Amino acid sequence: MHRIARAPASSANLGPGFDTLAVALGLYVEVELEERAQGLLVEPEGEGAELPTGASHLAAQVACKILGHDRVALRVRSEIPVARGLGSSAALAVAAAAAAGVELGSEGAFRCGAAFDGHAENAAAAAFGGLVTATLVEDRPVALPLPLDPALGFVLVVPDNRLFTAAARDVLPEAVRYEDAVFNLGRLGLLVAGLADHTKLLAGAGDDRLHQPARSALFPQAPALLEGLREAGALTSCWSGAGPSLLAITTRASCPDVAEAARQLMGRLRLAGRALELKADLEGVQVKQLA
Amino acid sequence: MHRIARAPASSANLGPGFDTLAVALGLYVEVELEERAQGLLVEPEGEGAELPTGASHLAAQVACKILGHDRVALRVRSEIPVARGLGSSAALAVAAAAAAGVELGSEGAFRCGAAFDGHAENAAAAAFGGLVTATLVEDRPVALPLPLDPALGFVLVVPDNRLFTAAARDVLPEAVRYEDAVFNLGRLGLLVAGLADHTKLLAGAGDDRLHQPARSALFPQAPALLEGLREAGALTSCWSGAGPSLLAITTRASCPDVAEAARQLMGRLRLAGRALELKADLEGVQVKQLA
Repeated sequence: MHRIARAPASSANLGPGFDTLAVALGLYVEVELEERAQGLLVEPEGEGAELPTGASHLAAQVACKILGHDRVALRVRSEIPVARGLGSSAALAVAAAAAAGVELGSEGAFRCGAAFDGHAENAAAAAFGGLVTATLVEDRPVALPLPLDPALGFVLVVPDNRLFTAAARDVLPEAVRYEDAVFNLGRLGLLVAGLADHTKLLAGAGDDRLHQPARSALFPQAPALLEGLREAGALTSCWSGAGPSLLAITTRASCPDVAEAARQLMGRLRLAGRALELKADLEGVQVKQLA
Repeated sequence: MHRIARAPASSANLGPGFDTLAVALGLYVEVELEERAQGLLVEPEGEGAELPTGASHLAAQVACKILGHDRVALRVRSEIPVARGLGSSAALAVAAAAAAGVELGSEGAFRCGAAFDGHAENAAAAAFGGLVTATLVEDRPVALPLPLDPALGFVLVVPDNRLFTAAARDVLPEAVRYEDAVFNLGRLGLLVAGLADHTKLLAGAGDDRLHQPARSALFPQAPALLEGLREAGALTSCWSGAGPSLLAITTRASCPDVAEAARQLMGRLRLAGRALELKADLEGVQVKQLA
């Protein structure tokens, strides 16, 4: 067996949609899998190449589980920065599952990605592409597509510093005010409607009271950046996953201007990193059979 | 000026979408407004006809405010049971505003209805029809349409007993567990996706942890009814607004069977009331100029 699978990065949460929404972005990880006579080989390139390459590598864990053996060479080429809130693990797990020939196509890759990574919404975006809503129903990951206006573009602010999801989870409270829980429901409705039709996307649709305020303690420049992105022309803005990346949702036409404004803002706020102009990925995981 | 305006009832909340979602249903209130030489006259017929008919009547409040005087006869004919969680006040306010010639058409009727009734999502459904998401953004009511699969039908269980929204609000807590707030976000995503395509509507998409459990103290048969409606073939089920009406969301084809099962269930649970088979209203408020 010799296959290559490619899966996209994703921004989860999207403001009010904590652990619920994700959008797939045109930034990819590719896993080339080739069965061989003996022994595991993991050869990573690009983002995440510094991670340990043995049997503990996520691509190896996923592929060996599906194949039922470890006689495989895995070449992993990634453009997705690790530990930045871009769903790199979910994309890698989905791509590895697909490369290993998981059954049920993208649905199987989704379930496998959700099981290994633990983030159903990132795994769904990586597997199906586009805008997705995902959650657990009786402990089973479930995902459904939502409409995404093709006129939308994305500017991703990716700080050089990492923020691991576990740390970003630790700052979340155990209880929330009733009105804040309801606030997020209302904004989630507006966001879903606005992402389907960018002419109806309100700036406030990206607002959140469940996770972003608490996480700003880990990333003090975040509120000013989110506000600055909107002032620069983004339709709305929010954290990407557990951060520290931030996402500006904009029209494709105004992406370059918003990205340039983001770079200037990062300079003023002394935040080292990049601002990437991205399109949504609409295909999800893609597999090519080589032999 | 002589006009007739008609606005539909609505089910708000719809399980996870507390204070966020509403669907307009084919059950109407009609307000006929005729200016006259002097004095206010309010003539109600049908549901709600027992309410006081003076200047305190909601239709009179709304119409007099918009007209700037009280020289008007208002004939109100309603099919919408009052204080059952069917948005009767919002529909009445929207119809009265439209009959009184509020500016900006249905948008103006929506804002007026939201201001007088206080439920932006019921007012939005009454004004625009279909499935809507609504909330307050900086104290201003905002509503957007969401797609609704035309194959869906609705069975409304309407108990004879009333439940006033204020009482139903009093049982709600001040804080909720974080995981419950996130639970509702996840189910709201599934519900919005499933209402757009009934083949993807999961039973669990109607589940809620923010208001239905607390309100069941006021309506102990509710959990068994909600469960029974699903067992009888409803795709999902939830409270309608603040209750006590309950809504089964089903295919139009299976509406009669679900309604019949609902009647049998009500009998077994000793709940007096009706089970109505309804379609969604897709037009919202309609106005006819008579002179």
